[in-house]
Amino acid sequence: MDSKVDQRSLSCSSPVYVHNPHLDVLKEDILYHLGLGTATHDLQAMFGDVKFVCVGGSAWRMKSFIEYIAAELGMEDPKSEYPNICDGTDRYAMYKVGPVLSVSHGMGIPSIAIMLHELIKLLHHARCTDVTIIRIGTSGGIGLEPGTVVVTKQSMDATFLPRFEQVILGKTVVYNTDLDQSLAEELLQCSKELSQFETVLGNTMCSLDFYEGQARLDGAFCSYTEKDKQDYLIKASEAGVCNIEMESSVFAAMCKLSGLRAAVVCVTLLDRLKGDQLTGSHEVLHKFQEYPQKLVGYYIKRQLKAKAGGS
Amino acid sequence: MDSKVDQRSLSCSSPVYVHNPHLDVLKEDILYHLGLGTATHDLQAMFGDVKFVCVGGSAWRMKSFIEYIAAELGMEDPKSEYPNICDGTDRYAMYKVGPVLSVSHGMGIPSIAIMLHELIKLLHHARCTDVTIIRIGTSGGIGLEPGTVVVTKQSMDATFLPRFEQVILGKTVVYNTDLDQSLAEELLQCSKELSQFETVLGNTMCSLDFYEGQARLDGAFCSYTEKDKQDYLIKASEAGVCNIEMESSVFAAMCKLSGLRAAVVCVTLLDRLKGDQLTGSHEVLHKFQEYPQKLVGYYIKRQLKAKAGGS
Repeated sequence: MDSKVDQRSLSCSSPVYVHNPHLDVLKEDILYHLGLGTATHDLQAMFGDVKFVCVGGSAWRMKSFIEYIAAELGMEDPKSEYPNICDGTDRYAMYKVGPVLSVSHGMGIPSIAIMLHELIKLLHHARCTDVTIIRIGTSGGIGLEPGTVVVTKQSMDATFLPRFEQVILGKTVVYNTDLDQSLAEELLQCSKELSQFETVLGNTMCSLDFYEGQARLDGAFCSYTEKDKQDYLIKASEAGVCNIEMESSVFAAMCKLSGLRAAVVCVTLLDRLKGDQLTGSHEVLHKFQEYPQKLVGYYIKRQLKAKAGGS
Repeated sequence: MDSKVDQRSLSCSSPVYVHNPHLDVLKEDILYHLGLGTATHDLQAMFGDVKFVCVGGSAWRMKSFIEYIAAELGMEDPKSEYPNICDGTDRYAMYKVGPVLSVSHGMGIPSIAIMLHELIKLLHHARCTDVTIIRIGTSGGIGLEPGTVVVTKQSMDATFLPRFEQVILGKTVVYNTDLDQSLAEELLQCSKELSQFETVLGNTMCSLDFYEGQARLDGAFCSYTEKDKQDYLIKASEAGVCNIEMESSVFAAMCKLSGLRAAVVCVTLLDRLKGDQLTGSHEVLHKFQEYPQKLVGYYIKRQLKAKAGGS
């Protein structure tokens, strides 16, 4: 597949796909963990104009992102509190400003997968088209200066293979974890133009665990040595892994299946070759977490300007 | 192993174990996702008296549990807001009343595992002894009337084996998922005494996904038929599975490793043989979610009374 051909230029508009014939016969679709549903909410009126979805683990961070993007796009309302659209549940938080939706997903593959199933159905029910989705997150870096932003080329599992495995009806199904390469390149270009922090393109390892699953030495349990840890991280580095987080593989797999143009943009909070604990000051860690927001905010602003200019 | 022998009666007090020699050389242990640390908090003063830990997915539910247990134990303070001990982070929420700690864990194995690593280290640093930990959650039932409470006998994976698999340094490690059988029996006995809702002892399937991983027909993607779904759930039922949730396997494995006396108590919100969507009214679903709280509240109260009475 030639990643240089943008499928979007070949058609007028690209919908968000679900692949589930059973949905057609549902009288009502309850998006339980979002506190929304087709019988209780006019999803098309609420979400039909969405073109950009940004997702991240922390509800606080996703609220701060919507405030940031509102200011960037000149759509801020100083009196507005940016209400949480999912306020009937505490599983996820969701905010919207103009064409931008900001949604939290909690930590780990199962948590983001529940949100994505329901988000994809939401965008489908709302008849959204040409949607770009970007995960803005935090990660541990390998051999990178803390504060470096990594745009993911491929998401890899703990054996450094670019795949996501899921058990369905007791059988293992394997998905590929390709992300949109042209979107990744555009984000890299945006970072050059912004010129406020270092950004690299690299592979991202997606782990099911924060401690032993990422070769940390500081969990409640650890049965390996410092040398075992270093050897594993160096092997990861040799496979092109620049950073480690916990959601990118299922995010890549599900977005690809549903026709969403997807990217993963994570800042590294520490260099795992040098330590495991997050010892950075609150202020420094907070500043680092703003980098993916700034990069994606710049990208969205540029896209909307280009569209307004007719390009 | 004879589950009728309570190990607790053989020794004066049982500590909470970590198995990690690297922790001994850490100057400071930052429990990052709890917003706590050994250098910033006097963990022994804050948590040394903890004897019961209750964990559940939703932060709102765990706050409501601490309010309920405070009232049950006559320790409520009508003016108190029960402050969130983890208020420096939005990853988890934690509340404490007397010897009872209530902690949220989000959804899915990775999310609860992060919390458990840091909770086990917290209890270890605080020198807690004789701690009982109970997960109070929600689940989908198989062939049970919605609102039935399931106390877990064994936690099983998606192929109905009682095990938890984790990838460490790229290699798969298998843990057993035994829970404390005497605690399960005591909880069952408590439910009989309470006599407010049906409670059964059964196996619990722990899935990595809410939709396809649990044979649901209402996700964004589904590649199997209604018959495939029914066949799978019937196979699960034949393996003794009474309900499906998303955290019990790693909970059982980690609690066993750390010497915590552990149980899983989940209410079933629907019968998966009859449907997939949570169509129950908000009031009914809310009432069901109170059942595990009531059962565990009754158990804790009885234990504390027995202790006060010297038995």
